[in-house]
Amino acid sequence: MSLLASTARPSEAGTVHIALGDRSYDIHIGPGLLGAPSVWATVPQAHSAVIVTNETVGPLYAERLAHALGTRFRRVLQVSLPDGEAYKTWESLNRVFDGLLAAGCDRKTVLFALGGGVIGDLTGFAAACYMRGVPFVQVPTTLLAQVDSSVGGKTAINHPRGKNMIGAFYQPVQVVADLDTLDTLAARELSAGLAEVIKYGPIADAAFLDWVEAHLDALLAMDKEALAHAVRRSCEIKAWVVGQDEREGGLRAILNFGHTFGHAIEAGLGYGEWLHGEAVGCGMVMASDLSVRLGLMPPSFLQRMVRLVERARLPVRGPKLGTDRYLDLMRVDKKAEGGEIRFVVIEALGRAGVRAAPDEVVAEVIEAHTG
Amino acid sequence: MSLLASTARPSEAGTVHIALGDRSYDIHIGPGLLGAPSVWATVPQAHSAVIVTNETVGPLYAERLAHALGTRFRRVLQVSLPDGEAYKTWESLNRVFDGLLAAGCDRKTVLFALGGGVIGDLTGFAAACYMRGVPFVQVPTTLLAQVDSSVGGKTAINHPRGKNMIGAFYQPVQVVADLDTLDTLAARELSAGLAEVIKYGPIADAAFLDWVEAHLDALLAMDKEALAHAVRRSCEIKAWVVGQDEREGGLRAILNFGHTFGHAIEAGLGYGEWLHGEAVGCGMVMASDLSVRLGLMPPSFLQRMVRLVERARLPVRGPKLGTDRYLDLMRVDKKAEGGEIRFVVIEALGRAGVRAAPDEVVAEVIEAHTG
Repeated sequence: MSLLASTARPSEAGTVHIALGDRSYDIHIGPGLLGAPSVWATVPQAHSAVIVTNETVGPLYAERLAHALGTRFRRVLQVSLPDGEAYKTWESLNRVFDGLLAAGCDRKTVLFALGGGVIGDLTGFAAACYMRGVPFVQVPTTLLAQVDSSVGGKTAINHPRGKNMIGAFYQPVQVVADLDTLDTLAARELSAGLAEVIKYGPIADAAFLDWVEAHLDALLAMDKEALAHAVRRSCEIKAWVVGQDEREGGLRAILNFGHTFGHAIEAGLGYGEWLHGEAVGCGMVMASDLSVRLGLMPPSFLQRMVRLVERARLPVRGPKLGTDRYLDLMRVDKKAEGGEIRFVVIEALGRAGVRAAPDEVVAEVIEAHTG
Repeated sequence: MSLLASTARPSEAGTVHIALGDRSYDIHIGPGLLGAPSVWATVPQAHSAVIVTNETVGPLYAERLAHALGTRFRRVLQVSLPDGEAYKTWESLNRVFDGLLAAGCDRKTVLFALGGGVIGDLTGFAAACYMRGVPFVQVPTTLLAQVDSSVGGKTAINHPRGKNMIGAFYQPVQVVADLDTLDTLAARELSAGLAEVIKYGPIADAAFLDWVEAHLDALLAMDKEALAHAVRRSCEIKAWVVGQDEREGGLRAILNFGHTFGHAIEAGLGYGEWLHGEAVGCGMVMASDLSVRLGLMPPSFLQRMVRLVERARLPVRGPKLGTDRYLDLMRVDKKAEGGEIRFVVIEALGRAGVRAAPDEVVAEVIEAHTG
């Protein structure tokens, strides 16, 4: 079976390469990949493969994946976790470790993260830490994971005091984004994924922003060709950014457009109340307004972003947490330095920057877009 | 103040360099280093420094270190953990994270591991994971940590099912081995450190084995010149090995001479019952016997090692756990692959190798040296 299955145009499916020296890897994108043994032929050989998944995704896809892996591994085990951001915790991580150790898994064991962003981040961190590092493969089954979280090697769990506070930069050996797994995605999850797709335009590619606006209805209708292009172009932009700045020393921070406000929303409400993509959607509106208030962008940019986020069926108003609470939550963001909050702002369509902003201006943004 | 303080010969104190590309760093060795601001002048600048220590070492040395760091950091915080291998756990790690997050520490914060191997391994792993990685400095205060665990970037915590099972390869930005901190070391801890010093001779430097035999009484008497040479030569050998194989793809495994048997002893008794160095001392006797039984070394080598380990006041007989239990415990060792135990053996004086051994021969070794 070819990577380029018949339902996708050859130009829209295929492979995106992440160039990171000896940590380079490929992202395979297309329908029908999960059950195709040829896709898995480049994964490192080992005695054991372990599929880490959750109770929603596992029953749908784990057997198909296990069957394909059976040609390459002597045994294929499975660890299933509860579904949701609320389980991106040390306790879940330890369930993975318990499973690996109980089965006598050695340090050549390959982990497969089958699920959305929570499973990908947690499994990647488990792989980074188990016996000081085993190989892992990302098998993202949500749009958000396919366009963002499965690519680039950021792994983490949450801490009660902050999202993704405990983690590692640890690259997968391969990413397999099977577009067919999106068929079972809930509408709310699809919208959450679109938030990250929308993100790539303003920060890196004005033409892609135009394309997303023109094809948003097709994306919402789960049109496979539109999804294939959205996933591929998102991965290309992310690959370009991560290839220049693997460990977020500078440029990579632009991928966090909307995330500083978004993380405050998630933390303030308690993780899992809003989906990550929902918080990012609303956060992009706030960060767009900040860009306008700082004189970087015209007011029409904010209107354009509000309209697009709304059309994607994402919230454009944040919860009423209080301005001080928002500011406090943002001060513990990982981008903060010495207590100063750092915001990703749009400096021109397709170009982002990171800078501090006066508390009064940030307060105006919060008051205009929450409650 | 010079790094070469007056009580040490210039040739025996000073600096050992670990060459690891952009992860290279220096080990400073000598008396009087802890309170010398010049030693800390090359540590990255940041708003906050956090000293992670334990309830035994903290009261002795934390204030001296905090004072020296006060010239370079706006605030110097401290997190103190209970003392002992039994606390090398997720719970202790989380106490460090709680402390860092409660104080609003950002991702430029520098951690200082002030203590022995447990503090160094745990603090290094905390640094590897906190906000996906912050810089850390090793400040080893035990002989074992100065000659072994603080150098080379292996960090970890224990899991109920195995020692050091959860961890990372993560290099410190500097190591500061102040020989004066050994003044408060208990005799049992000194002997435990000597186990790792003894190790370097058979695996890498036959002349150093001769030197250790000739100077063991001086080392036991805490002679500073002898200690300075032992620390320096141990670090040089470790630097040479780690520089060639940072992530234990091959050569580095020789540093685990005695550790496969030793880890089984520690796990079988429960961590903390025997000191790590005590288990390694006994483990070296067993691994030496294995080398003899495999026909690699003459019986006189075993006698020589038994004599030296005994003189260092280390145990030469392991606890009676039962042969099957030893074998089971060794099968979950990180060096095991597909259930096959891999042993570090001596192939010639000053040269080690890694290989499997028939269960019957390993059983003979266990029966000859335990109970």
